[in-house]
Amino acid sequence: MPFDPSTLVYNDAGLIPAIAQDHQSGDVLMMAWMNAEAVARTLETGKVTYWSRSRQAFWVKGESSGHAQRLVDFRLDCDRDCLLVLVDQTGPACHTNRRTCFYTAVRDGGEVELMAPEV
Amino acid sequence: MPFDPSTLVYNDAGLIPAIAQDHQSGDVLMMAWMNAEAVARTLETGKVTYWSRSRQAFWVKGESSGHAQRLVDFRLDCDRDCLLVLVDQTGPACHTNRRTCFYTAVRDGGEVELMAPEV
Repeated sequence: MPFDPSTLVYNDAGLIPAIAQDHQSGDVLMMAWMNAEAVARTLETGKVTYWSRSRQAFWVKGESSGHAQRLVDFRLDCDRDCLLVLVDQTGPACHTNRRTCFYTAVRDGGEVELMAPEV
Repeated sequence: MPFDPSTLVYNDAGLIPAIAQDHQSGDVLMMAWMNAEAVARTLETGKVTYWSRSRQAFWVKGESSGHAQRLVDFRLDCDRDCLLVLVDQTGPACHTNRRTCFYTAVRDGGEVELMAPEV
């Protein structure tokens, strides 16, 4: 069936969470938000595009940092209220310069940093 | 540093998104929500426990279906507003009986079902 971004389920702010996963390593890189137009732009351009809640603007990942995400596969979940984008990630995904935003683990009741920023 | 669930960033409903990933295959299985008490219970029991928004109740994954998630590693992101739980998944994660909830891809403008329900 043809895909229409308006058939996804958005929250009260018109947003849907999008999980970015490295298509090669399988690492979960980050989670951010898209609106219907960001979904459409991501599919049209192949450049993963989020909606920045803090800036209230489209956020073409890597446009300023160079750490872009090229779309490899676009998936939606059974409830149509969450997205999974498989990406080809250039450089670190996290603004802290780490490969993934999920670099902190909770182990034995304490926080453990799993990786240092790339240099 | 010691971990305190109250230091996570929750939304207006007191919830934080939690992504479940199969620790062996790397498959992203599902995304659901936790509140601070669900985070604490998950860490204490090793049984991944969400907050069901529809039922407004704790949801120990697999408690009724048997498709439980044993916690292998608990991670948080740079903004402390999203969780990643690496799990040992028993049976399919999705209520449709598929391994993952993300079984639909958008390719060439159309929706493609990537896997059938397990029997």
